[in-house]
Amino acid sequence: MATAPGDMQLTLLGTGDVRQVPVWGCECKACQRAVVDNRYRRRPCSALLETGGQRWLLDAGLMDLAERFPPGALSGILLTHYHVDHVQGLFHLRWGLNHRLAVFGPEDAGGCADLHKHPGILAFRAPLQPFQRFELGSVSVTALPMIHSKPTLGYLFEQNNQRIAYLTDTVGLPDTVAALLAEQPLDLLVIDCSRPPQPEPPRNHNDLNLVRAIHQRLRPARTVLTHIGHELDGWLMKHRWLESLAAEGIEIGRDGVRL
Amino acid sequence: MATAPGDMQLTLLGTGDVRQVPVWGCECKACQRAVVDNRYRRRPCSALLETGGQRWLLDAGLMDLAERFPPGALSGILLTHYHVDHVQGLFHLRWGLNHRLAVFGPEDAGGCADLHKHPGILAFRAPLQPFQRFELGSVSVTALPMIHSKPTLGYLFEQNNQRIAYLTDTVGLPDTVAALLAEQPLDLLVIDCSRPPQPEPPRNHNDLNLVRAIHQRLRPARTVLTHIGHELDGWLMKHRWLESLAAEGIEIGRDGVRL
Repeated sequence: MATAPGDMQLTLLGTGDVRQVPVWGCECKACQRAVVDNRYRRRPCSALLETGGQRWLLDAGLMDLAERFPPGALSGILLTHYHVDHVQGLFHLRWGLNHRLAVFGPEDAGGCADLHKHPGILAFRAPLQPFQRFELGSVSVTALPMIHSKPTLGYLFEQNNQRIAYLTDTVGLPDTVAALLAEQPLDLLVIDCSRPPQPEPPRNHNDLNLVRAIHQRLRPARTVLTHIGHELDGWLMKHRWLESLAAEGIEIGRDGVRL
Repeated sequence: MATAPGDMQLTLLGTGDVRQVPVWGCECKACQRAVVDNRYRRRPCSALLETGGQRWLLDAGLMDLAERFPPGALSGILLTHYHVDHVQGLFHLRWGLNHRLAVFGPEDAGGCADLHKHPGILAFRAPLQPFQRFELGSVSVTALPMIHSKPTLGYLFEQNNQRIAYLTDTVGLPDTVAALLAEQPLDLLVIDCSRPPQPEPPRNHNDLNLVRAIHQRLRPARTVLTHIGHELDGWLMKHRWLESLAAEGIEIGRDGVRL
C-alpha cells in the first residue's frame, strides 16, 4: 500500500497467538529461532492505527504499555475482545493518574478479571454493537462481529478512499461480514491466522486454508497474517511457503512492522 | 542477616504496590525520580527464595517471567493471593510446553480470570489452609492467614535455625499469627507497607504506623518493607526518615536487592 500524507498507517505491535513465540520451554525450530533472533519473536497480538495526529491502540495485551506509550501518546484503545492476552496490559495502565483513556470494545458483561469493576483511568465507552458505525476523529470505524469463543469484534477503518480491515480473533467470517467487506476494495486486510493448514476445520482461530479462502473472496490489495502460533512459523520454515504466499498477495506479519 | 552456605536467601524481585512506581502519568517527585533512575522503580511485589539448589518464586506479578526464568530455573511458585498484580505473569507462562510448574496458594475458588479453568502447564496444588505446615525440600513452610480483601496467605520459612517471614498483602496481622511469629526470633521480616502514616487506620494494606507496631512486637533482626506505593516513597524523600527507620531496624526494600 503506497501511503500518502494523511493516510492511515497501521503498525503491528504484536503478531503472536496466546502462547507467543517463542513458547516457553518449546524446542521447535521456530521457537529456537525466536530465542536467538528477536526479529522472529511474536508478542501478544496488537497494533497501532495512526492518522493525522491520532494514535489508536488495537488491543492491549502487551505488558509494557506504560513504557511504550507515555501519557498523551494514545488517543485511546479499541479492544477486539476480553480474552486476557488481548487486555492484560490494562491491569497496570489503569492505575495511572492525571489522565483518562477512552476504551472501546464489544458487549461482554464479564469483561476480564476485575477490569470493569476497577477501571481506574480507563473510560470504558458504551459497548459497541455488531455493525455499529462510529467516528474516531477523521476515521470512520465499523465494528464487525467475529466468530470466536468470546464476543469479539473486528474493525473496518475508512478514511477518504482508504480501507483497512483488522480481523482478529476469528475462525472464518460471518457471511454478512464478508459481504460487507467485499462491497468495496480493501487496501489492507490484517487477519488472524493462528495455525498451518489443518486436516479438519479449526475452532476459534483461522488456519491458513480459511485465510486463503477469505483472501480469495475479498481480494484485498494486501493480506497480512497476524495472531500467528509457533506451529505456523515452523510450518512456514519447513515448507518454504513464503514466496508462493507472497505471489498470492499474502504476507506474514512481524512485530514492529509498519504496513 | 549474615548468611552461611546452605542458608535461605531471599531476593526482592518487585517491591511496588498495584500501581507500581513510577505511576503512569504521575508527576510526583518519587515517580519522576523512578522515571529517570531505574533503581527507584518498583515492579509488582514478588520475591525469590533460594536454598540448596531450590528456587521458589513468591508471587507471579512480574510480566517477564518467561525471560527471567528459563525452563528448569524454578522449583515452583507460591502465591500469596489471586489479585491480578500478584498472578498476571502466569497468563503467559501457563502456555509453555514440555514442563510443569507446581503452584501453591490459598483457597480461592474464583482465582483470577481463567487461570484455574485453563491452567496449561501450571500444576495447582491443593489449596493451602491457614496455619498449614508443609515441606518444600529442606524448607519448612507455614501458611499464615493475612487480613486482606481476598483470601491471602503470608509465609513463614524455616530451615535449620533460620526463620524468614514474608507477609503481603495485609493490613495488620491476626493476633494468632503475630503470636506464632513471636514464639521464636525472626531473622528477617518482609512486610507490606504500602502507605505512609495515615491519620485513620488504613484498609487492606499496612501504613508505616502499623508496620512499626508489628516490628515492635515481633522484634525481628531485620524488617524490610515491600509493596511500597509512590506516596510512601514521596513521604520518605520529604521527611528523610530513612536513617531513623534504619536505627529502629526497618529498611526500605528495593527491586533486585538480595537480603
